[in-house]
Amino acid sequence: MTAKPKAIVLLSGGMDSCVTTAMAARECRLAALHVSYGQLTEARERRAFEQIADFYEITERLHVDQSYLRRIGGSALTDPSISLREADLDAADIPASYVPFRNAHFLAAAVSWAETIGASRIYIGAVEADSSGYPDCRPEYYQVYNRLIAAGTRPETRIEIVTPLITLRKQEIVKKGIELGAPFHLSWSCYRSQEMACGRCDSCALRLRAFEQAGAKDAIPYAAQPSYHPHAAS
Amino acid sequence: MTAKPKAIVLLSGGMDSCVTTAMAARECRLAALHVSYGQLTEARERRAFEQIADFYEITERLHVDQSYLRRIGGSALTDPSISLREADLDAADIPASYVPFRNAHFLAAAVSWAETIGASRIYIGAVEADSSGYPDCRPEYYQVYNRLIAAGTRPETRIEIVTPLITLRKQEIVKKGIELGAPFHLSWSCYRSQEMACGRCDSCALRLRAFEQAGAKDAIPYAAQPSYHPHAAS
Repeated sequence: MTAKPKAIVLLSGGMDSCVTTAMAARECRLAALHVSYGQLTEARERRAFEQIADFYEITERLHVDQSYLRRIGGSALTDPSISLREADLDAADIPASYVPFRNAHFLAAAVSWAETIGASRIYIGAVEADSSGYPDCRPEYYQVYNRLIAAGTRPETRIEIVTPLITLRKQEIVKKGIELGAPFHLSWSCYRSQEMACGRCDSCALRLRAFEQAGAKDAIPYAAQPSYHPHAAS
Repeated sequence: MTAKPKAIVLLSGGMDSCVTTAMAARECRLAALHVSYGQLTEARERRAFEQIADFYEITERLHVDQSYLRRIGGSALTDPSISLREADLDAADIPASYVPFRNAHFLAAAVSWAETIGASRIYIGAVEADSSGYPDCRPEYYQVYNRLIAAGTRPETRIEIVTPLITLRKQEIVKKGIELGAPFHLSWSCYRSQEMACGRCDSCALRLRAFEQAGAKDAIPYAAQPSYHPHAAS
């Protein structure tokens, strides 16, 4: 019997990282990494991280503070003076919630930690299809990042980024999570609020539509139904 | 007359970033970025950063705190329990001062800031030849990083990492700095000490040898001459 490989999972606490953790837990011994980057809902996201890590009995955890991203600014997620738009899932442009080059910061932390603790994989729940159009959520980005790891670490180091959700639609992610018993009720996706999900930001709208299309009910409470929603008035 | 392009220079405060700043200042309007990453000599390095930025009249400055790298550990630069070896400039292995994947953290901060303030170049004083053998100081690493920037930023964003020293020997860097009037007296290279350079760590040894080979005198004070030095006893 071969021991499972050791892996780091980037666990923001949202539904995608929750399902990614469920998938990674079947394959690997997990360590969990959470990043604070000055986002408005950080305290709530961190609670989701801790609770999901508890659920999967992950004892090796690292919390990294990259809140300097708030001072760099350029995003509605970190700068309260930039408005988060109401959900518009048909918009083709990159939304104001884009944090310039954000995932490179998260991955750098994961790679440094992986090289130090001897993990050979890094799981990240990036989603291209059906997402908000962020450039750092596309498969080619992770292909290049894997080349960067090979070029920038010790010669004997082998670390690979794994993106199990990247080609899935959001409703498929919900179905996969249900199949694996992922604790969606512990996860948090809203960009705006920490008490009750707003139901109106892109992230809430994507989540609600995904659950509806999957024929499932989302267990977390919402303050409002998003405007795209065909049953909003019911 | 075309306006000079805007660029960010990664300015640690060491001799290489000092000369890089001197070179970049001739080509570009500069913004200066300094990173604290929990290194033992941070306070001294930050003073060097501020003084060199003053010297070049760079008003747009950003100090980024990535001191979570100290908690990740794995390096003698950030973990006091790991010994910094005495200088051994002929050693072929990667020394204990290697901070796993460190430059990826610095570059991520530079790219996020560049995309936000509209800078089109990032200068970094990485040196391959005649250096300590860090994997993230090789030209191919920066080629891959430039591809990562193209893949991971907005479609209209154009940012290029520039490494003007990467093929130079240390003595050539000293000569270039003297030619350009770089303020070496304000720079700091020692890995160990903040009052008087130790003269014995890799970084001091590389610097002292470079000045000697360039036929120049280093203006900063040293506590000792490194053991490799042919005139150590004189």
